[in-house]
Amino acid sequence: MQGNGWPEQIKGSYQRLPLSMKTLVRPPVWALALNTAGEFIEFTTNAKNISVRYGVTGAFNMPHMPSTGVSGTDLYTFNNGKWEWMPGKFSFKDTVTYNFNNINASVSKLYRLYLPLYNGVKWLQVGVARDASLAFAAAQPSRPVVVYGTSIAQGGCASRPGLGWTAILERSLNIPVINLGFSGNGRLEAPILNAMTEIDARAYILDCIPNLGDSISYPDAEVRKRIIDAVAILRKVRPAVPILLTEMEIGI
Amino acid sequence: MQGNGWPEQIKGSYQRLPLSMKTLVRPPVWALALNTAGEFIEFTTNAKNISVRYGVTGAFNMPHMPSTGVSGTDLYTFNNGKWEWMPGKFSFKDTVTYNFNNINASVSKLYRLYLPLYNGVKWLQVGVARDASLAFAAAQPSRPVVVYGTSIAQGGCASRPGLGWTAILERSLNIPVINLGFSGNGRLEAPILNAMTEIDARAYILDCIPNLGDSISYPDAEVRKRIIDAVAILRKVRPAVPILLTEMEIGI
Repeated sequence: MQGNGWPEQIKGSYQRLPLSMKTLVRPPVWALALNTAGEFIEFTTNAKNISVRYGVTGAFNMPHMPSTGVSGTDLYTFNNGKWEWMPGKFSFKDTVTYNFNNINASVSKLYRLYLPLYNGVKWLQVGVARDASLAFAAAQPSRPVVVYGTSIAQGGCASRPGLGWTAILERSLNIPVINLGFSGNGRLEAPILNAMTEIDARAYILDCIPNLGDSISYPDAEVRKRIIDAVAILRKVRPAVPILLTEMEIGI
Repeated sequence: MQGNGWPEQIKGSYQRLPLSMKTLVRPPVWALALNTAGEFIEFTTNAKNISVRYGVTGAFNMPHMPSTGVSGTDLYTFNNGKWEWMPGKFSFKDTVTYNFNNINASVSKLYRLYLPLYNGVKWLQVGVARDASLAFAAAQPSRPVVVYGTSIAQGGCASRPGLGWTAILERSLNIPVINLGFSGNGRLEAPILNAMTEIDARAYILDCIPNLGDSISYPDAEVRKRIIDAVAILRKVRPAVPILLTEMEIGI
């Protein structure tokens, strides 16, 4: 699995943060860390038919976000130097299935399968015909961009995982992007920022302002302090890594 | 109710086509005509809180389209010469509810409530406090644009009814747009075209090509014939009304 900042620690699971962080973050942050936003699996195959089957941990959809975004997977193939979307047939039952049939591939190609944006994955299988090749791809050695943000970063309310903005950025730059978007809970908190410094990042993006917009809980002075503290935590360990601060107008 | 081409005939119901057409169109077209895509209710009120309650006829969502789009309503207010979106709190249970609270209105304003894109409405209530004014608005006398199309025209897969493209066009031009989008079933068929000629339209838009893309069912000669016949039907009755033909690339 790729798109994760701690591949060694999380091995054997699909979670976004290492288990060691469970007691360091607030419970809602941990619950959201079990969502697979931004994570993906890459494989090469010459198969004409690819079948994806998996189980999820939570509800398929939300009233304002469809099953294909909350719980869906999303397949792309690398073709002529860029990522192209692959349409498939899907079914959301006890086992979620995506089938990609009659693929026009005479040679082996690289595929990227994005995992659900707002659900956890219990297990996942990628199947091809017995006579087709299949090999899972290792992570690119390229240093990643690490994004710490809110629901907007996590992928709300994209209709497919590949349309979350971190995934779009990742494909357009062809650089890995680690998604640390925590819906409603991106609040520039020290445990997350400390963990981010463990990643040899190409850049850090702090996109938490939309979750600090309630001026009663987060008066201006508090927001200012959190921004300054956040930059200080990252700068102390990674002085040369660029930090991109984003803002957003709150309210209607 | 507005956004309907036959307001006299459909009185007392929320359907898009008059009952007299039930036997003239294919059953899936009739079923989709019971979806309220493009229809809306306008009212004026000085209320600070507006409550919308209604029942729907079908499932709340589809795997690829959220409840807020399939079955939701969507409120806009006319302010400084343009339509502004009103955020609300929603709940999808036996009765669907939308509540718009603490509206910053010192005077009476005009509101437009779009109805569900992919569901039927059984009943609907708009509530305000006892001491607030409330008056339903009559339809604008302005001649409408009439759109005959596919799921894309019906509103798939907008996250809210106000974000279907016919609704966006309607607000940006401030001209009524009649939505005759029939998901998977916009096929330039004579019963619909004949019915369209009954409407004193400002323009007709024919956007059916995406549902005529299967070259086995609809070879080029058949598509060409349907386009020519469609224009002839409209031209015969409404020779001066502009007809906009759209196309779309089919396939990936």
